[in-house]
Amino acid sequence: MDLAALLTSAGMNITVCVVLFSLYSVLRKQPSNVNVYFGRKLASRRSKSHDVCLERFVPSPTWVMKAWETTQEELLTIGGLDAVVFSRMVVFSIRVFSVAAVICIVLVLPVNYYGQDRIHKNIPFESLEVFTIENVKEGSRWLWAHCLALYIITLTACSLLYREYKSISNLRLTHITASPPNPSHFAILVRGIPWSPEQSYCDTVKKFFSFYHSSTYLSHQIVYKSGAVQKLKDDAEYMCKMLSSGCGSVQPTCKPSFAQCYFCGGSTNSFKIISNDIDSMHGRSGYSDLHINARKKECAAAFVFFKSRYAALTVAQNLQTANPMLWVTDLAPEPQDVYWSNLCIPYRQLWIRKISIFAASITFVLVFLIPVTFAQGLTQLEKLEKMFPFLAGTLQKKFVIQLVTGYLPSVILVLFLYAVPPMMMLFATVEGSISRSGRKLSACTKVLYFTIWNVFFVNVFAGSVISQLAVFSSITELPAQLAKAVPVQATFFTTYVLSSGWASLAFEIMQLFPLFCNLFQRFILGYKEDTMNGNLTFPYHTEVPRILLFGFLGFTCSILAPLILPFLLFYFVLAYLVYRNQILNVYIRKYDSGGQFWPIAHNTAVVSLIFAQVIALGVFGLKRSTVASGFTIPLLICTVLFHQYCRQRFLPVFKNNATQVLIDMDRKDERCGRIEQIFEQLHSAYCQFTSSSQSECFSSHQGEREIVRTPEDVEPGKEISQQDLSWPVHRNLTSDKPVLGGT
Amino acid sequence: MDLAALLTSAGMNITVCVVLFSLYSVLRKQPSNVNVYFGRKLASRRSKSHDVCLERFVPSPTWVMKAWETTQEELLTIGGLDAVVFSRMVVFSIRVFSVAAVICIVLVLPVNYYGQDRIHKNIPFESLEVFTIENVKEGSRWLWAHCLALYIITLTACSLLYREYKSISNLRLTHITASPPNPSHFAILVRGIPWSPEQSYCDTVKKFFSFYHSSTYLSHQIVYKSGAVQKLKDDAEYMCKMLSSGCGSVQPTCKPSFAQCYFCGGSTNSFKIISNDIDSMHGRSGYSDLHINARKKECAAAFVFFKSRYAALTVAQNLQTANPMLWVTDLAPEPQDVYWSNLCIPYRQLWIRKISIFAASITFVLVFLIPVTFAQGLTQLEKLEKMFPFLAGTLQKKFVIQLVTGYLPSVILVLFLYAVPPMMMLFATVEGSISRSGRKLSACTKVLYFTIWNVFFVNVFAGSVISQLAVFSSITELPAQLAKAVPVQATFFTTYVLSSGWASLAFEIMQLFPLFCNLFQRFILGYKEDTMNGNLTFPYHTEVPRILLFGFLGFTCSILAPLILPFLLFYFVLAYLVYRNQILNVYIRKYDSGGQFWPIAHNTAVVSLIFAQVIALGVFGLKRSTVASGFTIPLLICTVLFHQYCRQRFLPVFKNNATQVLIDMDRKDERCGRIEQIFEQLHSAYCQFTSSSQSECFSSHQGEREIVRTPEDVEPGKEISQQDLSWPVHRNLTSDKPVLGGT
Repeated sequence: MDLAALLTSAGMNITVCVVLFSLYSVLRKQPSNVNVYFGRKLASRRSKSHDVCLERFVPSPTWVMKAWETTQEELLTIGGLDAVVFSRMVVFSIRVFSVAAVICIVLVLPVNYYGQDRIHKNIPFESLEVFTIENVKEGSRWLWAHCLALYIITLTACSLLYREYKSISNLRLTHITASPPNPSHFAILVRGIPWSPEQSYCDTVKKFFSFYHSSTYLSHQIVYKSGAVQKLKDDAEYMCKMLSSGCGSVQPTCKPSFAQCYFCGGSTNSFKIISNDIDSMHGRSGYSDLHINARKKECAAAFVFFKSRYAALTVAQNLQTANPMLWVTDLAPEPQDVYWSNLCIPYRQLWIRKISIFAASITFVLVFLIPVTFAQGLTQLEKLEKMFPFLAGTLQKKFVIQLVTGYLPSVILVLFLYAVPPMMMLFATVEGSISRSGRKLSACTKVLYFTIWNVFFVNVFAGSVISQLAVFSSITELPAQLAKAVPVQATFFTTYVLSSGWASLAFEIMQLFPLFCNLFQRFILGYKEDTMNGNLTFPYHTEVPRILLFGFLGFTCSILAPLILPFLLFYFVLAYLVYRNQILNVYIRKYDSGGQFWPIAHNTAVVSLIFAQVIALGVFGLKRSTVASGFTIPLLICTVLFHQYCRQRFLPVFKNNATQVLIDMDRKDERCGRIEQIFEQLHSAYCQFTSSSQSECFSSHQGEREIVRTPEDVEPGKEISQQDLSWPVHRNLTSDKPVLGGT
Repeated sequence: MDLAALLTSAGMNITVCVVLFSLYSVLRKQPSNVNVYFGRKLASRRSKSHDVCLERFVPSPTWVMKAWETTQEELLTIGGLDAVVFSRMVVFSIRVFSVAAVICIVLVLPVNYYGQDRIHKNIPFESLEVFTIENVKEGSRWLWAHCLALYIITLTACSLLYREYKSISNLRLTHITASPPNPSHFAILVRGIPWSPEQSYCDTVKKFFSFYHSSTYLSHQIVYKSGAVQKLKDDAEYMCKMLSSGCGSVQPTCKPSFAQCYFCGGSTNSFKIISNDIDSMHGRSGYSDLHINARKKECAAAFVFFKSRYAALTVAQNLQTANPMLWVTDLAPEPQDVYWSNLCIPYRQLWIRKISIFAASITFVLVFLIPVTFAQGLTQLEKLEKMFPFLAGTLQKKFVIQLVTGYLPSVILVLFLYAVPPMMMLFATVEGSISRSGRKLSACTKVLYFTIWNVFFVNVFAGSVISQLAVFSSITELPAQLAKAVPVQATFFTTYVLSSGWASLAFEIMQLFPLFCNLFQRFILGYKEDTMNGNLTFPYHTEVPRILLFGFLGFTCSILAPLILPFLLFYFVLAYLVYRNQILNVYIRKYDSGGQFWPIAHNTAVVSLIFAQVIALGVFGLKRSTVASGFTIPLLICTVLFHQYCRQRFLPVFKNNATQVLIDMDRKDERCGRIEQIFEQLHSAYCQFTSSSQSECFSSHQGEREIVRTPEDVEPGKEISQQDLSWPVHRNLTSDKPVLGGT
């Protein structure tokens, strides 16, 4: 592939991007699309109707300006800490690759280009390999330039990473302290409540905590079985009972409700209705039968509330009894963040679920090799011609060659990769996360490993797999193997940035799937009202791995094939604008992980650096430059030490809340006399069922309805007033059916 | 090597063992050796003098009877929980290898022996390879016998492991609850106290804990700098000051001591003397200079005492501030268990120490390959003859051949291995363990990895290294590689059990080094008194890895070369008697890790099983028995699941104390009205310096003196009386010099 082919590819992509972005700037002004492009604003208030004027059909860059001008504080208020962390990832990438681009294009690129004494062609017709480190001849004294560039990139990256980690730790602390009182700080989730034949789970929990934590225990809230499977079971049981008793008349009785939803305010009503229903159903089957049935619906899990944040934290972190499978305590997720249907999984199942999912993920990664290897095979034209002789004529044409080698493999890969995030989300659900953010975090990690392995390593080794079958002929030879393979594949990675990277941003901003759904509803089904309400959350589990993958490619290829850097830098700048726009306009914030994505980003960046250094070491070894290799080793050691230091210094803050911070908050609340008010509102925060009528309670089983308190209601920096103490009542009836998408 | 050679070797070893054991039974009766063989009893009481009679010089098996008859309760009282755990490891090995020996000799050995249709020689002259799985021909239908044996061994091992883990968890709980009030339950160790120019560490600690934990904070005890390095620095400083001021007269002044050893009883005296010394030295340099000097001796570490066990636990487990490098809290080790000189290591150094030690350990393992490879080369006579042609004549003699192939390699290996434990103990010290038991545990893990790697893997692959250089030609081919190499090396492992195993027990019981020291002192130096007082603790860091290594060899070789099993079983029975005898008579218990060695033993046993299965899988693959391979895979999966289940079910109990247990203990103490008494005694428990005169304080810097409360003072099962509440005051002046041996 020569430079002209690359530029053709870049041109095609730029054209596509420009067209799509212009289209976006027009489409967003159409009133009919407002629920596609302004879902977040819609969720908070009705937007005013637009006038029909010419301006609506002229592309304009106003969204770019808005995205650019938004400050971090605004982003924090609108998108939460996770949005800020995501934005910092992109900013970090822009900064580090700006430095890398300057140093590599000024210093490394000329060294590569004039690396061997040969007659240079016209630059556009130069093969791309001339610009890589492969063109530097063995034993060249100019390899110090690469080594110096590696030093500068590493130092820049490490100092930026340190600063970011520090500032995000502080942001996280502010997020904890400055936000209005958070019910999750006062609550813990208890699982593995021991079953006893004499008393219900509810009584067991009350007895245990009022005995062992009498001074701090406030109340609790049992989790009930819910979801589609449970409903089907209940219905079947109901039908069975009805048929056997031969009595269909429902006579509301006034028996006391056995469901103890302590202090749950109006919400007890809903369960009272359910249990009344059971009552009526078993009206004649006697007290004991009824008792058993009411208890059958309780899970061995409960939310327990404490009188102070510190008490909740200590109980959550301690081992409760000598049997670690009983009374398992965790800090409760925020009410909106609870993934209710996973709470009912018996705790002793969890370890086996985790292992199974671990095995399943590995299997998935292995099976995925097959289409990727095939897609990669397309880049090698000669192989393709041998395999499909009838294509020989077509493949001689220059344009087709450029298309096939430069574009087609990436497209195939991208299409296959679209199936991965839903799969990983399913895995994360089955694994048993108790919170939505935890599930997304788990899916994010899985997608990240998957992406880096399948895009980078498989592509790097697929080239060598075709020529020689032994992939890992030796672990110690891995650097040399990588050093041979990576520069060869650098061209592919450059085109991957062009196709997958740029196109993904254009697709992201266009929101193609919701757009088509909207059009279909409006013009085919003829709906007038907005039926699709904006309730998408930001898909961190797909976008974080994407950003980190491009960072990984950038670090590993920067000194080997510096031509990738301008394209990458363009990608990150575009990503900065696009994602900020999406956070501001499209996605709503239902829950927040509190910046838990940053440790993932930090670790990936450091691992990328280490890989870049190992590959550089291999290359310097192949080029027989002992000086450059010698200087790379201390850099490698220092990077590892830096990583360990950051783990020690910052990571614990992301795992646990600090005692000092929580005690200070508790005391502040006590001084304000606000604590009683907090306790009152605490009871209604974690309520599994809706407080509305029975019919809604049962009919809305399939969907999810959430009343979300949008953050715009709170002005940034505003003193927390009494009314801010209220938090959203989580009215949710979850289903067992895993939600794969962006919720 | 044929069976006769093996039996020759076994005969030699049995003779050596019988001679040594007889010698031991005589030597132990000599009054002059009482401090070598009855160190533990000496530490508690003077033994009565022996009469000179003929009986003293007749070997007798009384010690065997005593060791056999001791019950677990007695062992627990005398040797502590660690001794019981060690004894359980040996018992577990005896049980599982009894089953393995029966099944393998009845079922597997005949299958191996008649595996191929050939004319058998007289059994004694049969090559040992005839008894291994190598003799079974490819595609044999009799391989189900091996598979069945593997199933029986795995099931026996897993059920025994589960039972042992459960019973040891219970023992650990009893150890925590039934023992007299333990000061370590009320204390935490705080490191990384922030330095402030205005106040001393002591004030900072007081301020922090009385502010944030006001309801539970009791008092604290700052750790002071001590040890040889600090003494040298102090002396140099003193000399410098003396010379510069030109004033040598010491005038004791009555300035107040700045060393705040809260409630430390008499022990404050010692530090007062030190600080008075500084006072006198700086008599004219004014108050501020003196103030700074007194503060310089404080470390950024302190023991903080709380009013209840539960409070101490919660503070120890929580992150204290938003900076995880400050106010780092851990549960305090028991007073006798504290490794004082490591407490002064600044906390920010610890992570880099750990990494360095990790790197150093790996380097040590790699460098160690060289002598082992050479030693292993001796087993291949032809190679040896080629290398040293002048030996050719000697090497033709049959006896020499048997000696060289059967005995010499093991002896060389054993000698080299003796250098390892001190090295690993040094590593564990530098790593910064805060307790002696923690240090021994860390050394134990290191020695274990080292031993298994260097004895098993290096020997297995050393054979293939000589013939073909590529050790790891592929990770996926590892089972096949192991399957080829292990049966070949099984003979070596059998002789290793004979030589290293049996001999190590004989050496252990003979206590050769203390015996020679004692003889040297008595007969050469002419000492009359016992100068060597029994203060050896049990060397768990060498003996646990040894037991586990033989277990590893047993599991991996059992179905491949069943002839190893009788020798191994004999070793374990002997080990049972010898180690019990040593625990009863020789070693004293200074500190106890509370059964922390069991998780190591459990994990090693499970990993051994997994290795055995992987190797079996490789062998079945090589022998083209798909049925046997197919049946091995579910066994492998089940073993992994079993391991994970045990991790979930039992491991947390060994990491943390349960809230329920501690609160119950707290309440019991409160009911008894014993709590005030505990608080009073708490203050004197953790005292770094001796309460005796200044001269002793400085002169005993090099050694270690401990007044140990021997457990015999407490009758097993006796109701804890008021006087049992007193615990030993730890009077200790540690040196920076790491103690490598059994302390």
